[in-house]
Amino acid sequence: MTLPLGYLYSATYAGIRKAAKDDVALIVSGLPANAAAVFTQNLVQAAPVKLCRRFLKASHGQVGAILVNAGNANCATRTGEKAAMAACKAASLLLRYPIPQILPASTGVIGVELDAQKIVAALPRLVEALHPDGFEDVARAIMTTDLVPKTAFGEVKLRRGVVRIAGMTKGSGMIHPRMATTLGFVMTDAQIPVAHLRAMLKRSVERSYNRLSVDGDTSTNDTLVLLANGASGVRPDVGEFPRVEEEIARVMESLARAIARDGEGARKLITILVSGAPTNDAAARMARAIANSPLVKTAVAGSDANWGRILSAAGNAGVAFQPARTDIHLQDVMVCRGGVAAPFSEAGLKKKLDAPECEIRVAIRGRGKGEARFWTCDFTEEYIRINASYRT
Amino acid sequence: MTLPLGYLYSATYAGIRKAAKDDVALIVSGLPANAAAVFTQNLVQAAPVKLCRRFLKASHGQVGAILVNAGNANCATRTGEKAAMAACKAASLLLRYPIPQILPASTGVIGVELDAQKIVAALPRLVEALHPDGFEDVARAIMTTDLVPKTAFGEVKLRRGVVRIAGMTKGSGMIHPRMATTLGFVMTDAQIPVAHLRAMLKRSVERSYNRLSVDGDTSTNDTLVLLANGASGVRPDVGEFPRVEEEIARVMESLARAIARDGEGARKLITILVSGAPTNDAAARMARAIANSPLVKTAVAGSDANWGRILSAAGNAGVAFQPARTDIHLQDVMVCRGGVAAPFSEAGLKKKLDAPECEIRVAIRGRGKGEARFWTCDFTEEYIRINASYRT
Repeated sequence: MTLPLGYLYSATYAGIRKAAKDDVALIVSGLPANAAAVFTQNLVQAAPVKLCRRFLKASHGQVGAILVNAGNANCATRTGEKAAMAACKAASLLLRYPIPQILPASTGVIGVELDAQKIVAALPRLVEALHPDGFEDVARAIMTTDLVPKTAFGEVKLRRGVVRIAGMTKGSGMIHPRMATTLGFVMTDAQIPVAHLRAMLKRSVERSYNRLSVDGDTSTNDTLVLLANGASGVRPDVGEFPRVEEEIARVMESLARAIARDGEGARKLITILVSGAPTNDAAARMARAIANSPLVKTAVAGSDANWGRILSAAGNAGVAFQPARTDIHLQDVMVCRGGVAAPFSEAGLKKKLDAPECEIRVAIRGRGKGEARFWTCDFTEEYIRINASYRT
Repeated sequence: MTLPLGYLYSATYAGIRKAAKDDVALIVSGLPANAAAVFTQNLVQAAPVKLCRRFLKASHGQVGAILVNAGNANCATRTGEKAAMAACKAASLLLRYPIPQILPASTGVIGVELDAQKIVAALPRLVEALHPDGFEDVARAIMTTDLVPKTAFGEVKLRRGVVRIAGMTKGSGMIHPRMATTLGFVMTDAQIPVAHLRAMLKRSVERSYNRLSVDGDTSTNDTLVLLANGASGVRPDVGEFPRVEEEIARVMESLARAIARDGEGARKLITILVSGAPTNDAAARMARAIANSPLVKTAVAGSDANWGRILSAAGNAGVAFQPARTDIHLQDVMVCRGGVAAPFSEAGLKKKLDAPECEIRVAIRGRGKGEARFWTCDFTEEYIRINASYRT
């Protein structure tokens, strides 16, 4: 699959993180791209998040470049906005885009002052290195506790030609749904007006990033940007927008799943499917309650078919449903029928639960049509090890 | 301190749990006691919880005995109510109390049928062994993953004489605040009318059990019963009720703290104090969000002064406050002033954080008068080990 046309990428090491791995990166569109973005709903927001909001308003959704750093969240810092602004200003001069068309993004430790000079000093090298094939370099540069870079690709054949989509994301801990979690950048070369792009992003986030939890902690820096620079020269017909949106959502779902799979300390990707709830929203709340239960997630880690914890977690979602009409399947094996134990082979299921993917299906029999899918990961001792000494 | 007058206790092994440790117990009042109780707010409720509610209504708050078992939660079971009813019936015959004056309570694994015959067979031994000094035996018999029995005592000198209070509780995992968590039994020999007792319990729960979280999972069996049998012969004057209530609340706070301290895998008790919030309720929501953050709890486990996670967790509480006016103290050391880092000695604070108790103080400067105190524990690899294989 080819990358979307008209984007350039580069990454380098600016000395922000201790380990000498790339920690600043640029994504540049040859033409100003239409942009939509969603941000963390945490009340505590990092300086780059605040700046992005302001810039997108000022530019009416026009974006020339994304300037991102890892190793420092630039959150809860005295000089946060000044530092982010200085970096954007330097990029603006080199890239010849107005300042509000440079979106800043940061990820890393909270509460440590970010030295903008390090980014400013690295910018000439970054601009020099810009290249259409630098996509993977950027995906690597934004990693923090991630073990693998996370990318996803798509394309759609439309009447007037092909449009391409490429997305990258990072995140492994401090991941919680009620927002666009962590950092994510999705580029397409389709021509899509800003208003359409915003609506597409909103709906796609709802079924991807907002259905994801690693540890229930919402970060202060969550930023998801969708760019459409139109470089393909292809403008979808009105009737073709749903297909483009479907492909964008698919790329975003794939990114969200990749985050869950790479959750800190995780050995297993867990997919939770709830059906038969009163509404889709109620189903999502039940799925989220199951996904956020440490007891469910530790049971999956131990390949223990402890369905009672799943039922109990669902009962804590604040949704009215009848436990006595609830069936639960683990790896396609029925473990709970009508709210009580179903007969199953413990040894056989234990073996199935050792697989790297676990599916939990909760179905409420009756007339409810509400459905939801949700992703999380198992909860292992490694999560504790990683997080007991992240900062020091 | 002497135990409240007029109560008898006993415990024995009925073969419900595999290990040959006491798993059924009786608390009997010589005279029917006035009673108040609160139960889990989980939609999925165990059979004994449902029965208790019905019994308390039928008896107008009169309780002769509490019949409790560990090793099986009698929840999500086909024969749950029948089993609990059979056990209460047998106790009723032996103790000569009407059935609705026998409150059943269960704790243990969910989804396994409870064999009532085991309890019925053990009851004659239990009744035979009833003794005023059996209090600690019962506190031990109700333990599941608890490492220590949890008890607390109090007494108040009133004009007409002394009244005594004794409480016991169990719980270590599946502990979350929004209810009276886990099992707790508090006895007093004061004469207190049922209506008063209910109001006292409600207020006391609010500042004790409802300010406690181990892992954010609300159990299906949570039951807290407060009995007042009047055996002291002392009826508090109207003006003395607040002092009696204060002492009952103190006993309950001590029990809640004991649960947090013995949280599964915990090495440290964490006390969270929030002040300066718009209301007490808002302060409690912020404290709860901090207490439920795995990132905060793993940082405390690692003695890492990661105050950014505390600020971020507070930002997720859904409470409007100004991060820029927020100060954070860890072990009396200021680590965050006005939302940004305060200077402190990393090495010195790390050593202080190695202590068995950790205090997190979040203060919002301004006119807000809302305050709250909350208890939780650190999050260690041992929690994962315990819960990855609890059932099998």
